[in-house]
Amino acid sequence: MKTTLAAPDERLRAALQHRIDRKTKPLGALGRLEALALQVGLVQQTETPQLRQPHILVFAGDHGAARAGVSAYPQDVTWQMVENFLAGGAAINVFCRQMDLGLSVVDAGVNHDFGKRPGLVDAKIGPGTANYLEAPAMTAAQRDAALERGRGLAHALAANGCNAVGFGEMGIGNTASASLITHCLVGEARGADLATITGRGTGLDDAGLERKRALLARALARGGRPADPRAVLAEYGGFEIAMMAGAMLGAAEKGMLVLVDGFIVTSALLVAHALAPQILPYCVFAHRSREPGHRVQLDALGAEPLMDLDLRLGEGTGAALAWPLVQAAVNFLAEMASFESAGVSDKT
Amino acid sequence: MKTTLAAPDERLRAALQHRIDRKTKPLGALGRLEALALQVGLVQQTETPQLRQPHILVFAGDHGAARAGVSAYPQDVTWQMVENFLAGGAAINVFCRQMDLGLSVVDAGVNHDFGKRPGLVDAKIGPGTANYLEAPAMTAAQRDAALERGRGLAHALAANGCNAVGFGEMGIGNTASASLITHCLVGEARGADLATITGRGTGLDDAGLERKRALLARALARGGRPADPRAVLAEYGGFEIAMMAGAMLGAAEKGMLVLVDGFIVTSALLVAHALAPQILPYCVFAHRSREPGHRVQLDALGAEPLMDLDLRLGEGTGAALAWPLVQAAVNFLAEMASFESAGVSDKT
Repeated sequence: MKTTLAAPDERLRAALQHRIDRKTKPLGALGRLEALALQVGLVQQTETPQLRQPHILVFAGDHGAARAGVSAYPQDVTWQMVENFLAGGAAINVFCRQMDLGLSVVDAGVNHDFGKRPGLVDAKIGPGTANYLEAPAMTAAQRDAALERGRGLAHALAANGCNAVGFGEMGIGNTASASLITHCLVGEARGADLATITGRGTGLDDAGLERKRALLARALARGGRPADPRAVLAEYGGFEIAMMAGAMLGAAEKGMLVLVDGFIVTSALLVAHALAPQILPYCVFAHRSREPGHRVQLDALGAEPLMDLDLRLGEGTGAALAWPLVQAAVNFLAEMASFESAGVSDKT
Repeated sequence: MKTTLAAPDERLRAALQHRIDRKTKPLGALGRLEALALQVGLVQQTETPQLRQPHILVFAGDHGAARAGVSAYPQDVTWQMVENFLAGGAAINVFCRQMDLGLSVVDAGVNHDFGKRPGLVDAKIGPGTANYLEAPAMTAAQRDAALERGRGLAHALAANGCNAVGFGEMGIGNTASASLITHCLVGEARGADLATITGRGTGLDDAGLERKRALLARALARGGRPADPRAVLAEYGGFEIAMMAGAMLGAAEKGMLVLVDGFIVTSALLVAHALAPQILPYCVFAHRSREPGHRVQLDALGAEPLMDLDLRLGEGTGAALAWPLVQAAVNFLAEMASFESAGVSDKT
């Protein structure tokens, strides 16, 4: 996947900052919302940004390694949770309804035949990845197809008028995949070994965590630690992770805001960022997950999430929960009076 | 002000926790939202809590000490900002519109004649407090009137069907008042001297901060450090702070959820808490303010706010911004499927 992504032009920064500073509040008093308003203005290249048709994309995929026991849940939970999404009963459904966010579920490679279903995008690359304990998780052709399909999905959202997209995922075993990706791409630079980046996922007990760490060490012994992000994806990735990376790049290419959820979504961003570092100014980091590797990822990207609520659910729930803050940033910029317009005395 | 406030009955805790645990998510994966859902259920004494007619009350008052130079802004900004609230141009207006929160502005003691105005509650105790550098800020009768008036306002909201109220304030000089109250009520116990608890408020520079600290030390030398919370209010309080303390107690008496904003609102809560410690389980702490004394207050109350966005605006803006999280907690409890109802396999 080639991209010609460029970072947003910075020339509007001073004008945006001036507009923020004249609002009826002490300088800087809205804290991180002020930085967010400035960021959205730069991404949209306007002093009067607007958020249109915000959408959450949830990518689902299965992992061959799940059958080796890297998760506390059986692999069937991936398709069962997709059914739960389609029925409207999962946490992400609840939060999208509350926040008035569009929601699409993407079958990037679930080991289940859903047939044609409303609300489900069929982008299946295969019935789950291969088991990276034995062989690369996917072929180069599968990886490239996943990246391109993701990009296409983001471009299609943009064509429909959406300018902000949040990312979520579902895939039993995908924290394990995210740990391997994170270790390969930033672990060494951050002084974090594989065990540190490997957490309890959906809730492994101590013995389960030990088993997961041992399995991932075996995977690494087999596949090595490639430097190229495309090679990392092929060795250890999931179809949902590869497709998210492509969709993030596609979203930024179209000048959309990219809402980043937790550990697995951020592993996809690490891949996208390795392919095009200019993606970062398009990204809003929603929350800090309780999964320990998320901190390593965020440090590597120099990112400070908006919230820290001890979430570790995935599905894009953190992105959805942070949405009102993004909207609030745009709203204060659009709607607040200035000292001049309100007749309020400025600082003495 | 006497109160017979009781903490919520705890007998529903196990049933609420079970309901939370059967939702289609790993145990505890919604982090702080789960604790919040449990809290709201206990406050409302039901397994199916609902939030009705949530409302922000912004209390405004002037401080005699403002004319001595404890703030970066002139005293007139208090009434000018009240006009801004009434015109809909302040940050709290923007956020209340976005979050669909009711908003009332209460004139607890602004040094200005507003006349009868829609959206403004006339509860004026006096045209600002006396200057605590020279004399107690208010009389015992004024303090008691402010407390009772606040309680009455909360009871009236409850009578209108509201069961969640957020608190905000406006008053040039009121961070100084909040610093003195905090120092008297919890400073010694937390090992925090007056200077530590005294911050830049709306944005004092270094010289201004030094002047503020010197003035507050003078005030303390005059008025001492009373142990009784009522005496502290009379010496150093503001009418808006006293009225908030009464309204918080009144809200908890009616089983309402109390949303706590930043440093000044929390100083009112310290007073309410000293009068009735049972208030704490009714309180949701919205955010951690950048004002340094807020940390001391939160530690004293054992409180961990939901958000940390470097806000220091007041007006109840933090409470309004945290509202979607409270709503999300109630919504996931009401709307998410259980493992049983969704046919999702539980942990192996």
